[in-house]
Amino acid sequence: MDYVREIGRKSKEASRSVQFLGQEEKNEGLKAVARELRQQMGYLLVENDKDVKNARAAGMKPALIDRLLLTSQRIQSMAEELEQIAMLEDPVGKMECVKVRPNGLQIGQRRVPLGVVGIIYESRPNVTADAFGLCFKTGNAAILRGGSDAINSNKAIVKVIRDGLAKEKLPSDAVLLLEDTDRAAVTEMMKMKEYIDVLIPRGGAGLIANVVENSTVPVIETGTGNCHIYVDESADIQMAVDIIENAKTQRLGVCNACESLVVHSRIADKAIPLIYERLHQKQVEVRGDERAVSIQDGIRTASEEDWGTEYLDTIISLKTVDSIEEAIDHINRHNTGHSEAIITRDYDNALKFHNEIDAAAVYVNASTRFTDGHEFGFGAEIGISTQKLHTRGPMGLEALTTVKYIIFGSGQTRP
Amino acid sequence: MDYVREIGRKSKEASRSVQFLGQEEKNEGLKAVARELRQQMGYLLVENDKDVKNARAAGMKPALIDRLLLTSQRIQSMAEELEQIAMLEDPVGKMECVKVRPNGLQIGQRRVPLGVVGIIYESRPNVTADAFGLCFKTGNAAILRGGSDAINSNKAIVKVIRDGLAKEKLPSDAVLLLEDTDRAAVTEMMKMKEYIDVLIPRGGAGLIANVVENSTVPVIETGTGNCHIYVDESADIQMAVDIIENAKTQRLGVCNACESLVVHSRIADKAIPLIYERLHQKQVEVRGDERAVSIQDGIRTASEEDWGTEYLDTIISLKTVDSIEEAIDHINRHNTGHSEAIITRDYDNALKFHNEIDAAAVYVNASTRFTDGHEFGFGAEIGISTQKLHTRGPMGLEALTTVKYIIFGSGQTRP
Repeated sequence: MDYVREIGRKSKEASRSVQFLGQEEKNEGLKAVARELRQQMGYLLVENDKDVKNARAAGMKPALIDRLLLTSQRIQSMAEELEQIAMLEDPVGKMECVKVRPNGLQIGQRRVPLGVVGIIYESRPNVTADAFGLCFKTGNAAILRGGSDAINSNKAIVKVIRDGLAKEKLPSDAVLLLEDTDRAAVTEMMKMKEYIDVLIPRGGAGLIANVVENSTVPVIETGTGNCHIYVDESADIQMAVDIIENAKTQRLGVCNACESLVVHSRIADKAIPLIYERLHQKQVEVRGDERAVSIQDGIRTASEEDWGTEYLDTIISLKTVDSIEEAIDHINRHNTGHSEAIITRDYDNALKFHNEIDAAAVYVNASTRFTDGHEFGFGAEIGISTQKLHTRGPMGLEALTTVKYIIFGSGQTRP
Repeated sequence: MDYVREIGRKSKEASRSVQFLGQEEKNEGLKAVARELRQQMGYLLVENDKDVKNARAAGMKPALIDRLLLTSQRIQSMAEELEQIAMLEDPVGKMECVKVRPNGLQIGQRRVPLGVVGIIYESRPNVTADAFGLCFKTGNAAILRGGSDAINSNKAIVKVIRDGLAKEKLPSDAVLLLEDTDRAAVTEMMKMKEYIDVLIPRGGAGLIANVVENSTVPVIETGTGNCHIYVDESADIQMAVDIIENAKTQRLGVCNACESLVVHSRIADKAIPLIYERLHQKQVEVRGDERAVSIQDGIRTASEEDWGTEYLDTIISLKTVDSIEEAIDHINRHNTGHSEAIITRDYDNALKFHNEIDAAAVYVNASTRFTDGHEFGFGAEIGISTQKLHTRGPMGLEALTTVKYIIFGSGQTRP
């Protein structure tokens, strides 16, 4: 695995200069890369076409081929995203909580880049440009490891990024692609603690579990969401139906989509038929507990396994409960720490839900689909953290930085 | 390992109520435990004596036996520490960055407990009370796993803490001791992701490496310190000598002690003899590079290995360099991300060192020994993080918390 270690070494080396680039240099670099993506569009489309042809030959599902496909419009969007990142405020260098201690030491906390960020992801090639942009903006070097399906696209995108940086005389090793798509190469990457400061896996539950299980590099876990909506006894049923439709069907395959409903038994007779009708119109299959099945024809019986399943598909589970306590208990047992919502008109229940649900984002009377860096006003997002350390919820630029204490002394020694 | 998993399950259960205790309840609990420690002092001394006798019989070194020993004075200090923790500001519940989005969603970030904190430590029994106190103050349940040497002391301290909590009708499972001191029990603990939210290893390099290597629970790495002092060309030599004496000898076995010196060649002839003389008076052996050896009799030749060694003993390494760049390079290559200092009168070099050294705490003209929660004004400390994720440097109460987004909606759906 000398090749993988060489990538690590080069990235660490690059991070030593990337960390000191000024805000202007970084922004000019991002804009230069955006220009380069537009200029080399033809090359990118040709290389992407190789991946798409291979995928078709291998019998990949149309939905997945669509994720893999680049079009001139999608390349335009990649370029625009980089230009938007250039316009965001740079968190690097901010000083926080400066204080003077009784002995005269001045202690400040300065925000600095993490160093080298490793990103392991699956077949969407736009992640390549995006991840580079966020890492570069925050003064980090990036090691990218995309899926084998997108290898030609990723190689081409990284080449173009490096061309853009080189034209601005910026260190092109700020981004390096692990071209070896072997599993052994990822395993090596997960052990390179001396070169990589943090690993961010982006993709399905299997990929994430593998990284969490095997990495000795610190990991930020992202993106599996078994999100619930609880329809409280006092809910505005019309609002509940609208929010459920939005949270389940506005986009099916995303981590902030709703996967499970919890309905208070006192409102079940009225609410479940209306919820079912709306979901049925949208071709969503509902799997419920016995009480739900007895209320509404067409609801299939859920198994225990359903409560823990992130479908990412036209299926939703439905559980009835006799109290808000039972609802909170059920949600805290089965959720993945992502996004949970209550629909209620009861003030105490709203606060209780906010307080007692253990998740990155807890909503009252709104769709779980809002858990997103852009929707939260961060301007960009590298993923959604479902862990509690370092950062939780949508990760903007600040999540790609750390702090260091800067101490100004005048000869102080400790008594 | 059913016993270990049962501890995990009970702790998770306890965390569900501990997280909601009010500030007053938690502070009363801490004070009650302090009273109980004083009242049951006799019992604690008897139990500790068993450990001390076993250690003596096993031929443990006097310095280590001293770390293990409890005295009435030390038990008093444990109680006072808990009373001090009770007086600190509670970070739990603070709302940060509340904002209203254009669609009317109000989004706030609330500071909340982590949940269950696991602490794996070695033979100092005072860590038992301290770790409980910091976790309880921040609304976390704690699972403690001390070393086998201190098992009788730790059992006794945990029993007394639980007695104190029970008297206040507070959940005594807020603290649980893993009494099985087998290696297999720790290994199981490191895999209990469903019960433990974060693991903090406190102890020697071997213990910490084992936890980082094998844990699937997120880890906060603490406390190995290969700390440097760089004596710049323009240094006030007298200040340098005083700070070096303090940083090396004020306390030998601690992570913020200085382990390695870097001296600019243009000041070496004047500075090294004075530094050597002072360290020699304190029985510190100096191991230097060829140039240092040629300047001062008594300096022994350092091996490559010396540059990376945390001695925790009366030994220090000394490297000469021809520029501040070479000094920074050497330090960034060999340090452990803990504390580094420059002694200088040169303004540009001071800022350059602050900027370019990659460590939790970077000092100009002060002793590395100040990297400590109390010295930084946090009032308490659970350890010193040498990693970049979540928290860096001395960890006070806030490091034992996380955030969650609290969203107030009025029916919003995502377009």
